Amino acid sequence: MSRALHDVATGTLLGVALNYQGLLKQHLAEFEQPPYQKPPVKPVLFIKTPNTRNEHDAEVVHPGNGLRLQPGPALGVVIGKDISRVSAAEALDYVAGYTIVNEFSLPEDSYYRPAVKAKCRDGFCAIGPELVPTAQIADPHSLTITLYVNGEVRQQNSTANFVRDVPRLIAEISEFMTLHAGDVLITGTPEGRVDVAPGGRVEVEISGLGRLVNHIAAQ
Amino acid sequence: MSRALHDVATGTLLGVALNYQGLLKQHLAEFEQPPYQKPPVKPVLFIKTPNTRNEHDAEVVHPGNGLRLQPGPALGVVIGKDISRVSAAEALDYVAGYTIVNEFSLPEDSYYRPAVKAKCRDGFCAIGPELVPTAQIADPHSLTITLYVNGEVRQQNSTANFVRDVPRLIAEISEFMTLHAGDVLITGTPEGRVDVAPGGRVEVEISGLGRLVNHIAAQ
Repeated sequence: MSRALHDVATGTLLGVALNYQGLLKQHLAEFEQPPYQKPPVKPVLFIKTPNTRNEHDAEVVHPGNGLRLQPGPALGVVIGKDISRVSAAEALDYVAGYTIVNEFSLPEDSYYRPAVKAKCRDGFCAIGPELVPTAQIADPHSLTITLYVNGEVRQQNSTANFVRDVPRLIAEISEFMTLHAGDVLITGTPEGRVDVAPGGRVEVEISGLGRLVNHIAAQ
Repeated sequence: MSRALHDVATGTLLGVALNYQGLLKQHLAEFEQPPYQKPPVKPVLFIKTPNTRNEHDAEVVHPGNGLRLQPGPALGVVIGKDISRVSAAEALDYVAGYTIVNEFSLPEDSYYRPAVKAKCRDGFCAIGPELVPTAQIADPHSLTITLYVNGEVRQQNSTANFVRDVPRLIAEISEFMTLHAGDVLITGTPEGRVDVAPGGRVEVEISGLGRLVNHIAAQ
């Protein structure tokens, strides 16, 4: 992690599930069934605990034991000032910049599976390589996000396909919890997650933000 | 919060759901339905983010807006040394001591509801009043836990009714995530959660650990 990113992005790692339209559509049928009955009306959030923190060019340990490991390419929004109950119109004033997050996870077949166990293994949240100031990103909602595994494109999408854009996420979250300077909002992973194996090289590229590289190690 | 507790319990606040046998039994019928089909086989965990931290004798702000607020009396286990993959037999060697946690929450009617929104509002995790060293608690599984609201007993249970005892929780969690010195394991809230209103005085008493008092304020 670059020094600037390391010094700034020290807070809570807060993830948003189902924030790509393609992914939400895939789950709509499931949401019609009990016990949900309807799609979520508010952002579905999850936490990556501090033990998950990892960085550019570092190893991510495959869990082994017959478990599957999936990268989670995402745009990271680094909060610059404490935020409580801001409007969407003001939200971007509180952002320090953007970075790349690879939010590794075990696959989750249902929302009932314990998400912490799937998402909070040691090293499961790579962040980097740089903190890019907001001024350098004209529009955070027109960025191409690409996952490469061993040099091949395995996922590609655009932040234009967010269900909720960055200002709306910040407004809806800060309505009930204070976001602090240094917190990182993980804005969601697109549909089409793939499995990776030990020895694999995993790269997430986002236009204007560079490329975050990680190496999958055997347990 | 006492100085000792304040200096030690600085880490991740990790909650365990459904850890009282009476509560688990209440939900067993629901777990037979889709999409669960069976009861959880591993601890169901949740995180209380740093903005939820609160202390003895402090205010907890009622969310208002037609929402309901419920205290969550729980035994807190404060981790004393980093733990990765320990056996249940060794687990208590890594514990610094015990304290009381009041893990406030909005009621959750289903596991689909966004738990972060219910559990991570500012000030929703009171901890205290003291850190009681493990040596002073002969058996953490024979403690009476009592919730008083405005001086009346509203919940009472015993840590003898845990689904998973403290060593087993630590062993099962540290199998997939490192617990760090200063992390607090919130071992579960018993069945029978009650609503509280602005102006209310909420106290959680655990035998040998004292009494954690909080005051419900209007928004």
